Amino acid sequence: MPHITIAGDLPGIRGLMTDHPESAAPLNAIADALLRGPSPLPRGERELIATYVSELNRTRFCSDTHGAAAAAQLDGGPGLVKAVQQDADTAPLSPLLRALLRIAAEVQAAARPVADETIAAARAEGATDDHIHDTVLISAAFCMYNRYVSGLATSLPTEPGYYEEAGRRITTHGYARAV
Amino acid sequence: MPHITIAGDLPGIRGLMTDHPESAAPLNAIADALLRGPSPLPRGERELIATYVSELNRTRFCSDTHGAAAAAQLDGGPGLVKAVQQDADTAPLSPLLRALLRIAAEVQAAARPVADETIAAARAEGATDDHIHDTVLISAAFCMYNRYVSGLATSLPTEPGYYEEAGRRITTHGYARAV
Repeated sequence: MPHITIAGDLPGIRGLMTDHPESAAPLNAIADALLRGPSPLPRGERELIATYVSELNRTRFCSDTHGAAAAAQLDGGPGLVKAVQQDADTAPLSPLLRALLRIAAEVQAAARPVADETIAAARAEGATDDHIHDTVLISAAFCMYNRYVSGLATSLPTEPGYYEEAGRRITTHGYARAV
Repeated sequence: MPHITIAGDLPGIRGLMTDHPESAAPLNAIADALLRGPSPLPRGERELIATYVSELNRTRFCSDTHGAAAAAQLDGGPGLVKAVQQDADTAPLSPLLRALLRIAAEVQAAARPVADETIAAARAEGATDDHIHDTVLISAAFCMYNRYVSGLATSLPTEPGYYEEAGRRITTHGYARAV
């Protein structure tokens, strides 16, 4: 049961954002900027980084919401998302994306400098400053969203197809209109 | 040395935000909403939560920037901030604020539900849903800022008085104009 009252018993971040529109607006603006704004990384791959970090943080709501958005925008579809959720080391990813997921995992683990070797390995696969910046900030942002959603013990959706619908809504409209 | 090139070698989040205005705008909007927008918690106490979480994450730039902003807005001044940075359990805080810092520390430690007993202890000191919501989200947000600043191995300021000046600027102008 959630630690605070949530109007309409809406699940995950949805209920929190509905009840707290002042913080919801900039929280959605960050998601829009990081996951859909200008970046050398395609939107689907950024959603996959968000999914991966949320999975490492064991925040089911975020992992499956962004997993659905990733699946809707990547050729590999739900199978690729599931493979990354289960084991990013063996999932069929480009060498660059795999190297960026390693950066994301270090950022998820703690607020400390990513190891020089992890950065060098990503650069060897073609990572630019912008790839590295965007990966670090997406991972950091999901360490926020995941803590917000999990820390307050929000509930999971019960309707079938909830995540797929969220994935379609995000893909079509983005985050500014997600709530 | 930072993992990516930072124009003008500006320290901490300052250089990152100067180089990445698209993400800087919503990142500053969140700080403004959480630390200066409507809340049952005074601004100085919210800055103290930000300082405490940044200290737990060992992100010196954020701990000292928000510590200076807290010191500028709290009767206890720099002495109180230092006491919280060193040991929140013995710092001279109200029972409510001490209980909220315990919630913040759990959120900092991992993306998992805050313990029922920690929430109950805060409620026993008068915490409302809004106190709990705002504390969790401030802690979660600083787990993002700290990872962004530390993950990319940004530098620390070298000018004397840098943090005090940042604290004054934040107190007067807020975050929307912080960069």
